[in-house]
Amino acid sequence: MKNDIKFAVLGGGSWATAIVKMLTENADTVNWYMRNTDAINHIKTQRHNPNYLSSVEFHTEQLELTDDLNVAVANADVLIFAIPSAFLDKELQQLRVDIKEKTIFSAIKGIVPESGLIVGQHFHENYGVPYDNIGVITGPCHAEEVALERLSYLTIACSDMEKAELVAQHLSSNYIKTKISDDIVGTEYAAMLKNIYAIAAGIAHGLGYGDNFQSVLMSNAIREMKRFIKRVHKMKRNINNSAYLGDLLVTGYSVFSRNRMFGNMIGKGYTVKSAMMEMKMVAEGYYATNSAHLIVSKHKKKSKTPILNAVYEVLYENKNPKTVFQKLTDKLD
Amino acid sequence: MKNDIKFAVLGGGSWATAIVKMLTENADTVNWYMRNTDAINHIKTQRHNPNYLSSVEFHTEQLELTDDLNVAVANADVLIFAIPSAFLDKELQQLRVDIKEKTIFSAIKGIVPESGLIVGQHFHENYGVPYDNIGVITGPCHAEEVALERLSYLTIACSDMEKAELVAQHLSSNYIKTKISDDIVGTEYAAMLKNIYAIAAGIAHGLGYGDNFQSVLMSNAIREMKRFIKRVHKMKRNINNSAYLGDLLVTGYSVFSRNRMFGNMIGKGYTVKSAMMEMKMVAEGYYATNSAHLIVSKHKKKSKTPILNAVYEVLYENKNPKTVFQKLTDKLD
Repeated sequence: MKNDIKFAVLGGGSWATAIVKMLTENADTVNWYMRNTDAINHIKTQRHNPNYLSSVEFHTEQLELTDDLNVAVANADVLIFAIPSAFLDKELQQLRVDIKEKTIFSAIKGIVPESGLIVGQHFHENYGVPYDNIGVITGPCHAEEVALERLSYLTIACSDMEKAELVAQHLSSNYIKTKISDDIVGTEYAAMLKNIYAIAAGIAHGLGYGDNFQSVLMSNAIREMKRFIKRVHKMKRNINNSAYLGDLLVTGYSVFSRNRMFGNMIGKGYTVKSAMMEMKMVAEGYYATNSAHLIVSKHKKKSKTPILNAVYEVLYENKNPKTVFQKLTDKLD
Repeated sequence: MKNDIKFAVLGGGSWATAIVKMLTENADTVNWYMRNTDAINHIKTQRHNPNYLSSVEFHTEQLELTDDLNVAVANADVLIFAIPSAFLDKELQQLRVDIKEKTIFSAIKGIVPESGLIVGQHFHENYGVPYDNIGVITGPCHAEEVALERLSYLTIACSDMEKAELVAQHLSSNYIKTKISDDIVGTEYAAMLKNIYAIAAGIAHGLGYGDNFQSVLMSNAIREMKRFIKRVHKMKRNINNSAYLGDLLVTGYSVFSRNRMFGNMIGKGYTVKSAMMEMKMVAEGYYATNSAHLIVSKHKKKSKTPILNAVYEVLYENKNPKTVFQKLTDKLD
């Protein structure tokens, strides 16, 4: 144990499971909250999460599993939220423990639909958590590769660099390298925007565009991401760092990305509704598209966001993907 | 025909074949030189290049095929070279026509081994061609997708923007969009460096690194490319434009890239020599690695090029790829 800081991971999905795995390499015990009591019992008896990254074996004596959010929160100093943004607000309604003094890290890639805010801002504005207590854990990182202990790099962002360093140390291991950053707003927006661009990549693929176009799309996407983030939070950042460009690439080029898969179905002719039903879930980029579009539309001096606009037109204005993307190709270079 | 400018394409490979296809969409006739007389006869009678992009059907009345370099050169105003850089010097030794007044575009991705120069510089220094007559045609563009008429974007660079525009117009069609640039040095170096990074991606994949690492490698590669090019030719350029980042991605993420394949074999344990023999050809990035390393070593103030250095150590200093890449992972972020 590197020190006596207590961690809680909130969430039972693949990314939450991967983060618990990383923490158990360093911490004596990790508090782990998930709603699903069957999964908790399975982990306690079988040492595996039955639903996600089921190949990962846990030392159960290291886990304090609970289906009570308040227990996990009360027991920990550092809370790592890995609940899909669409369910975060609902989960937080159970909260009765004061979290103002806790350190809160978001491992969530998205915007909270109810508030239209990125996760850090949501905690700040709705729960009074000071910005110095708020951080972000970001990739590029497929949870599946953490399960396989394949070398991965994380960026840990917090305006209080000591807290960033502390969390970074607890996540580092022989297969995880970490980098710290003070750009909590930029890294969160990057993590959110990349899902929109992954949907765009999926739509393009579904429509029959090839690898040449995909590389042009990604080259334009990183420039669009730079303009967008600069517009909402101007500071010195290198958009080609792993937390921005790397994260865009690992998602945009992944055939396993749910956002890319969702886009691909739409490009192939599914309606938005039928694609969602077929996938039995909602891709996070779906909500992100609406939120990001709203943010851009509120700016008096708009940033040029042709890819975001195209995805918005397809998802929310029921426009024909083929026509929308044909027009988009003229705006890319 | 857009005007009476006469084009010659020099080379018989897949990229040369793709360029001839693009030109025949606009020009009445295209002069096409290749060494292989069997291939010439096959094209004349069967309308297909038997060896490359054989699905592409030509209207043979548009082609002036010749196995005499001097005939093709003499007949044309604009020469587009698409001969592998390793063979360029040998081919040019046949040249007896003065090319000083010709416009010369390089569609070659590499450095001429004999002179250690990028192609434009080679023509300038050894054939007295003024820089205003020299240009570059660059991707991101797999020739195979041109054959399928999948939408692709080319960047046409020349310090004389009128010449860039002229060539761009002749290559544009319903499946080719073009952009012009005045950065002939930067685009050529980018096209060369990306092959080195594709070898690095291949080595990493062969060693068992996954997609998370690949995205970090590409994120570091574009930053390294920016530093390298800035060091050799400082000017205002956006390294995230398609000609730089797009070209890096289309190669680095392609499982068909010969450079990536070559790296992959080395990562899997082949020696450099056996990988070359197995592939029955030399990947262009192999020469590029030596040339780029030489360029860096000549600079008094060296740019930080850890990926290039790692590939050089593996290819030219016979070092163990596993050890070299383990050290490299500590230098990336």
